[in-house]
Amino acid sequence: MAEKKKTESTTKSDENIIYVGKKPAMSYVLAVMTQFTAGAREVQIKARGKSISRAVDVAEIIKNKFLSDVKVKNIEIGTEERVMNGGNKVNVSTLSILLSKA
Amino acid sequence: MAEKKKTESTTKSDENIIYVGKKPAMSYVLAVMTQFTAGAREVQIKARGKSISRAVDVAEIIKNKFLSDVKVKNIEIGTEERVMNGGNKVNVSTLSILLSKA
Repeated sequence: MAEKKKTESTTKSDENIIYVGKKPAMSYVLAVMTQFTAGAREVQIKARGKSISRAVDVAEIIKNKFLSDVKVKNIEIGTEERVMNGGNKVNVSTLSILLSKA
Repeated sequence: MAEKKKTESTTKSDENIIYVGKKPAMSYVLAVMTQFTAGAREVQIKARGKSISRAVDVAEIIKNKFLSDVKVKNIEIGTEERVMNGGNKVNVSTLSILLSKA
């Protein structure tokens, strides 16, 4: 499954992608739950850099505490090049977890 | 501090597991490279909690910069219960990345 999207702004809403950032994990758990409650069969959780560990927390909390019929269908890692304020380019790791409702 | 393997199925021996902690990513990159150079066909990279993002960095650096014939064969996430100093139990997310030489 090829990843097409690099930035959040181009994401279509019907693709059910939750971007995990620096807020508490529960914020994103709630966002994912809302997608599933609204009828989504699959929700993609994405994160970059240090937020990657939080994305794993989000997936585990949903699976173990809230929606036991949701399974991890696929996990992908990758690298993105980001241009910093000073103009330097740095590589940032990315993680994408696809959750699927049984 | 014993490492419990809950989700593993394919690894033959503990020799091919690298546990990623708080050292710089390059320390672990070197450790993984050493395993492959010593003849390993597969190396498992494991991490817990905040070190998870570093484990992804390690896998990406090896794949993209050092060993282009190494691919990500499998990625698993999980949860471990840890007892803290005060006796409290907390859940910690885990990540396991299986790298395989083509």
